[in-house]
Amino acid sequence: MRNSVRELTVDLGERTYPIIIGQGLLGSYDLTPFVQGSQVMIVTNETVAPLYLESAKACFPGRQVDTVVLPDGEKYKDWQTLNLIFDGLLEKRHSRKTTLVALGGGVVGDMTGFAAASYQRGVPFIQMPTTLLSQVDSSVGGKTGINHPLGKNMIGAFHQPEVVLIDTDSLKTLPSREVSAGLAEVIKYGLIRDTEFLGWLEREIASLVELQTAALVEAIYRSCACKADVVALDEREGGVRAILNLGHTFGHAIETFAGYGNWLHGEAVGAGMMMAADLSLRQGMISEEDRTRAVRIIDRASLPARAPEGMTPDDFRRLMAVDKKNVDGSLRLVLLRALGDAVVTDQVDVSQLDATLRAFCVASEGVNG
Amino acid sequence: MRNSVRELTVDLGERTYPIIIGQGLLGSYDLTPFVQGSQVMIVTNETVAPLYLESAKACFPGRQVDTVVLPDGEKYKDWQTLNLIFDGLLEKRHSRKTTLVALGGGVVGDMTGFAAASYQRGVPFIQMPTTLLSQVDSSVGGKTGINHPLGKNMIGAFHQPEVVLIDTDSLKTLPSREVSAGLAEVIKYGLIRDTEFLGWLEREIASLVELQTAALVEAIYRSCACKADVVALDEREGGVRAILNLGHTFGHAIETFAGYGNWLHGEAVGAGMMMAADLSLRQGMISEEDRTRAVRIIDRASLPARAPEGMTPDDFRRLMAVDKKNVDGSLRLVLLRALGDAVVTDQVDVSQLDATLRAFCVASEGVNG
Repeated sequence: MRNSVRELTVDLGERTYPIIIGQGLLGSYDLTPFVQGSQVMIVTNETVAPLYLESAKACFPGRQVDTVVLPDGEKYKDWQTLNLIFDGLLEKRHSRKTTLVALGGGVVGDMTGFAAASYQRGVPFIQMPTTLLSQVDSSVGGKTGINHPLGKNMIGAFHQPEVVLIDTDSLKTLPSREVSAGLAEVIKYGLIRDTEFLGWLEREIASLVELQTAALVEAIYRSCACKADVVALDEREGGVRAILNLGHTFGHAIETFAGYGNWLHGEAVGAGMMMAADLSLRQGMISEEDRTRAVRIIDRASLPARAPEGMTPDDFRRLMAVDKKNVDGSLRLVLLRALGDAVVTDQVDVSQLDATLRAFCVASEGVNG
Repeated sequence: MRNSVRELTVDLGERTYPIIIGQGLLGSYDLTPFVQGSQVMIVTNETVAPLYLESAKACFPGRQVDTVVLPDGEKYKDWQTLNLIFDGLLEKRHSRKTTLVALGGGVVGDMTGFAAASYQRGVPFIQMPTTLLSQVDSSVGGKTGINHPLGKNMIGAFHQPEVVLIDTDSLKTLPSREVSAGLAEVIKYGLIRDTEFLGWLEREIASLVELQTAALVEAIYRSCACKADVVALDEREGGVRAILNLGHTFGHAIETFAGYGNWLHGEAVGAGMMMAADLSLRQGMISEEDRTRAVRIIDRASLPARAPEGMTPDDFRRLMAVDKKNVDGSLRLVLLRALGDAVVTDQVDVSQLDATLRAFCVASEGVNG
């Protein structure tokens, strides 16, 4: 599979776009067919810039390419940092025909996408995700935005890219903790919708942890395809798309408690998916064996298996209440009806939820459910 | 016509919405049929709140109505003030089913609309414009946004309201300067597209300046209808919609030079339309008589007839270059091919433009073209 390029189409009517996945694409793949105007603004961060910015520029031969380099980290996913993008666009006099390019992980992608959605009321953008998490998650769905002190991703827009370019070589410089965080979302697709893929993951998880190219291309392709299927059914997130949030309500509470950036998003989702599997068992929806299988594959990706130190069930209850997945204040969660079959429900048994929270808050409560 | 209610439909497919115009609607018109969820957040400013906030609340019987009161003025049309809306929504735990309501002028409308476009990636909103300018301009078009230090309205979104409620009684508390500013946009519709309406305005301008209800309802209805026609042809502003910017490229330069809020938007547009008519004459597009007719109706609305004191042709050239109506850096202007027939052109004769700039910058240059 070395040097092979796989291409996937995300089918959204007039907003349809391709995802191009392969090894060594940064620096060699010509993206100018996706650029309408003469100007390109690449947005990246201080960590990614020295590694890939020059290669990324080479994808736009003959265009005016300017750059904005943001500080690195989830804690900078805010108004102040977003404004650095607008400052750069206006200082360099980018017109409404400019194309923004997000080079980096999910934070860079979300912020650049929102900047593109908002600059002069909307300009096109291109994604070049360089982390596994952003490759398998942010590449599909069109969600963009920033955080607010009172909640994650509370301010944003739906805005689809022109194209997504995924170079698996960019994962070679990724810390192993971030590889694991990305694998959390890969595993999620197996858990919510695809038992065949879950079986493949159980065989290939070691190859993925070791960053073997063929396995990575396959895992990224299948993850994006799974997410694209779900998003095509429900672009604006009115219904089935919510199953993509398996583990996320718990996960967002964990991230907020820990302080943005202290736990990686994928780590919080990994723990959150274990909690969702645990609650699914307690509510009689899946078997002990399925719960164990879900927990084990997450664990084999070296993801944390409990809540942050000091976090209590009360912290969860408080922080889950402002999660945006709640409609009119009632608690809705994504649970498993079976492996490969997730469901959104507001039928949450509060005493069973409490048992799950206690089970994952062992350090602070000394109680193991 | 007293107490009559006129209704206009802005036809935008699935985003179609009504504009309801009449006397005494605030406080008596039930808007709950336009509210899907249980929560309503009214956004207004310190000037409007004591006058109309209680009446506005009465339009939503049986709903949870919260309020955010912003400082008043174009200079607050920025990130910091926008964030006050998000703070209020999150502190009061408004879900993604909430409805935002803009009660005030164009600044409140633009900011509330952008907050609605961005809160949790988009929630519905309702417009209750209380100034003449916002009633005839911001009610139609879906443009929302905020300013950036390097340019007006550079950050925003297209987001259509569920309904627009226009109470002509709210104009009774409006300073006469703001009535004139609103009339600039009313006159614009006659100049760009409707000579019959221009003739009506030449007969009724005194009644409008005196705020006679029947004339106001008619002028607002016809202005909104004219703008709705143009917007329906071109919702995302790719073509014909640009004629709505008659006078605006000059006007934005004036506003930026004067400092946001020192010249009212409509005042700058009034002077800008005179400049556009002047340049149209100089380029041989309209007659001396038509130029005079255009200048006279603007003048009868008590609008300024020259650039701000101290502003030079160089200031215009510098500030017009970052105006977002420019595609890839070339200067495009809206000019008049005839009264009632505006056209967008990049065929601007630079020496004639210089003559127009000198003619309107008399104070600083001592030259009258």
